[in-house]
Amino acid sequence: MSMIQVQEALDKILCQIQFKGVERVPLGQALGRVLTEDVVSCINNPPLDNSAMDGWAVRVSDCDQEGTRLRVVGTGQAGAAAAPPVSHGEAARVMTGAAIPEGADAIVMVEDSEVDGDEVLITGPARPHYIRIRGENLEKGEEGLPAGVELTPPRLALAGTMGHATVPVIVPPKVAVVSTGDELIPPGEPLGENELWESNTHALAGLCLRLGCQPVRFPLVIDELDTLRAALTRAAEECDVI
Amino acid sequence: MSMIQVQEALDKILCQIQFKGVERVPLGQALGRVLTEDVVSCINNPPLDNSAMDGWAVRVSDCDQEGTRLRVVGTGQAGAAAAPPVSHGEAARVMTGAAIPEGADAIVMVEDSEVDGDEVLITGPARPHYIRIRGENLEKGEEGLPAGVELTPPRLALAGTMGHATVPVIVPPKVAVVSTGDELIPPGEPLGENELWESNTHALAGLCLRLGCQPVRFPLVIDELDTLRAALTRAAEECDVI
Repeated sequence: MSMIQVQEALDKILCQIQFKGVERVPLGQALGRVLTEDVVSCINNPPLDNSAMDGWAVRVSDCDQEGTRLRVVGTGQAGAAAAPPVSHGEAARVMTGAAIPEGADAIVMVEDSEVDGDEVLITGPARPHYIRIRGENLEKGEEGLPAGVELTPPRLALAGTMGHATVPVIVPPKVAVVSTGDELIPPGEPLGENELWESNTHALAGLCLRLGCQPVRFPLVIDELDTLRAALTRAAEECDVI
Repeated sequence: MSMIQVQEALDKILCQIQFKGVERVPLGQALGRVLTEDVVSCINNPPLDNSAMDGWAVRVSDCDQEGTRLRVVGTGQAGAAAAPPVSHGEAARVMTGAAIPEGADAIVMVEDSEVDGDEVLITGPARPHYIRIRGENLEKGEEGLPAGVELTPPRLALAGTMGHATVPVIVPPKVAVVSTGDELIPPGEPLGENELWESNTHALAGLCLRLGCQPVRFPLVIDELDTLRAALTRAAEECDVI
């Protein structure tokens, strides 16, 4: 019997697999699919300098001693216009994601503050790094996802963050799943004395699905050369991989 | 602001999740589903003592010296009747999976043999452990898969091996995926200056799918109390988990 090495067998199989082309699918149908192109960000992310915390936009030079009191000039929320400019001795209330008002260069967490009428008492540090800088995650046009990656749940979120409602993915290959053997009987049907219930196709079809392929199951094939040849020919015609 | 611990929050959420009942699905649709009952083998596996190798069923006492010649009495194949009984000085050709003929107690691999007319020259060891014993994998009625496991590809194969064409699984919970925030815009639509493309729902829906749940996506909700309350009420009515 002439044997070949595993790598040679793999090469023979893999070189038969044709690229099936590209389709564009909505994010909601893209789980497990494989990107065909680099996907870049359509905007700077974040689009503006904004607050990483619920708290107060302040000038760090105003907060170098404990117990500073600042005058509250207004409020900024995510998705709305920035709060009014912050001058010396002032603070603007900011929600997480809110644009940083002009003049502010640090954030005090809400947990480190006490509101007192139209003033706020600062009881903790003012931190510049609580400001998320425009484009610090991704600059406009920067690649966030390279061609060839599988779209996992976090990558779907990243594609959305970058502004893409649809993504270009490989059309999944159809994989023929063919089980052969005189002794094999479909599960649940009566067994003869030396017969077995067929099981491999269930695992193989499941693995195909988990790999992003489309399994196509064919009937069981007996150990007879012409029957086997006919079954494999049919599978090869209808599918991309056997 | 009143805070609760993570475990308390989890308990509050998890105790709301109702058991959704059982459905029976074919193996081909059971990938990723969760068993509700132990699944037991309907037969002894293997059903009969059989060969783990292509080779020769022999008596081990005939093969204690190199270069033994044995008379070939017949052939056994998987799924067919056993080969004729093997007496002293005899061998039966067996394919992998073939029933062990009466009288034989070991297997010689085909690689350790040379056929010579109606005799076979034995050039390697005769091994009793190349006989797979009736029921050594699973006895009839033995549990192969316990209630509560997720049906991975290998477990689907095991369910088939045990004789089950369908399996009892939990009806997947419907999970409402609701994203809230004035700053959120669906990916691909034009953005205002301080707005963001919504991305979390794409990751959350993907995670739900990978966990065997059925995600149901709801429209984006603005930061307004009555609107938010109405949206969550609707999600709670239509789904099992928010």
